[in-house]
Amino acid sequence: MKEHQFKIQLKVRDYECDLQGVVNNANYQHYMEHTRHEFLESLGENFGAWHEQGLDAFVSSVSIQYKQSLRSGDSIISCLDVEKVGIKLVFIQYIYRLSDGVLAAKGKVENVMVKDGKLTRGEDFEALLNKLK
Amino acid sequence: MKEHQFKIQLKVRDYECDLQGVVNNANYQHYMEHTRHEFLESLGENFGAWHEQGLDAFVSSVSIQYKQSLRSGDSIISCLDVEKVGIKLVFIQYIYRLSDGVLAAKGKVENVMVKDGKLTRGEDFEALLNKLK
Amino acid sequence: MKEHQFKIQLKVRDYECDLQGVVNNANYQHYMEHTRHEFLESLGENFGAWHEQGLDAFVSSVSIQYKQSLRSGDSIISCLDVEKVGIKLVFIQYIYRLSDGVLAAKGKVENVMVKDGKLTRGEDFEALLNKLK
Amino acid sequence: MKEHQFKIQLKVRDYECDLQGVVNNANYQHYMEHTRHEFLESLGENFGAWHEQGLDAFVSSVSIQYKQSLRSGDSIISCLDVEKVGIKLVFIQYIYRLSDGVLAAKGKVENVMVKDGKLTRGEDFEALLNKLK
Repeated sequence: MKEHQFKIQLKVRDYECDLQGVVNNANYQHYMEHTRHEFLESLGENFGAWHEQGLDAFVSSVSIQYKQSLRSGDSIISCLDVEKVGIKLVFIQYIYRLSDGVLAAKGKVENVMVKDGKLTRGEDFEALLNKLK
Repeated sequence: MKEHQFKIQLKVRDYECDLQGVVNNANYQHYMEHTRHEFLESLGENFGAWHEQGLDAFVSSVSIQYKQSLRSGDSIISCLDVEKVGIKLVFIQYIYRLSDGVLAAKGKVENVMVKDGKLTRGEDFEALLNKLK
Repeated sequence: MKEHQFKIQLKVRDYECDLQGVVNNANYQHYMEHTRHEFLESLGENFGAWHEQGLDAFVSSVSIQYKQSLRSGDSIISCLDVEKVGIKLVFIQYIYRLSDGVLAAKGKVENVMVKDGKLTRGEDFEALLNKLK
Repeated sequence: MKEHQFKIQLKVRDYECDLQGVVNNANYQHYMEHTRHEFLESLGENFGAWHEQGLDAFVSSVSIQYKQSLRSGDSIISCLDVEKVGIKLVFIQYIYRLSDGVLAAKGKVENVMVKDGKLTRGEDFEALLNKLK
């Protein structure tokens, strides 16, 4: 498990598993979203508060490779790295199984920032990343 | 399957089933919510539009009896009856399996109306029910 | 916040909030399910493993009173008390907002145990509760 | 809206919208999964029955471009095209807003087939696609 800019530990919840007995694919997107929003909070920002201020980060694309199914009882380490590319904030996200460090899924999630309903050039993303330094 | 004031047909979606191979209990609440909101639309109202106008119906209590598990491939008929009791709008909801009419779940859902952040006496519920006549 | 037999801390995830900006009602049922399953794990059992052994606890009824909406950024303490009543295992569950200890929701969840497809008299529930002593 | 091999109509459910007032990104993956499974049913197969026979299609990768946010009240047409590429079954999926035909999201979803726990060369996918002819 290599070093990443941010990580949280989560526990698989049984309702996240589907009839195949494994975590449903869409829930990895939920894990990744929650990790990004906790990353935001670690920098003193809150996604809900942003929305109330007219500031909305929207996902423009997501791609996920599924490597290893997660099951009831598993805990995970959900990690991310982030950089600004053009107007977008791009997250590379990794979900590792805690018990053995195996990579369960890897994702790339691109975000754009909309302010009062208008697409921005991502100035707020830049301000956010400056807090990392 | 007795007569009810409103009904819709839905299909079980496989991601709604959990590792037991049956629809997860919380998803019945989703079916019931969607049925209430479709009932609203049948009366010319929309839950999201209400919220944007400062009008929020909130569930104050829910109780559900689970009678028969639903599975992959099942379709359901989701029905409701509604009346105003005091300041509350009270729904009695029924979920029947389409194939044989068996009652899968029965629920009672009580709602209060909040307008611009303040609890109301339910005048908007009354106006809504008047549309039924 | 009074004493309870088991509790876990959870963080509201933003995808659990709906267009009203508060945690969707059905997600309280998810919080309560996850708390029960973590309670199981605290006693050395796992819900998924039970299912693979032909042992399925099913919710027969749930009732929830919603007291205080939860929002983005909130953490919660999810607590439960449990007893066996007839063939059923009955949980009384409480969700408190961490920041101020306010009760957000209270629920009662009744469970029956099915073994190899047949309803039991709850002997496995009794064995489980004996582990508490 | 160009022609596709399979399509279904769905209605946005309000609980699928998050605090931004739009359908949460992960739910597009749910829409796409449900569309694939309905496609299966149109060919006389059922995902849950497959699982019980030891046949599990697993998503190995998904990529989605989000073009237009969906909101409360929207209906969608969810379409797919499918082909076998190597051992994989590859779906190209499109979600159009019903009211104006605008493309809301486009996805590519790759699947592998596991039989009794072992990765197959996709013979069952081939048999499935033969039913299309």
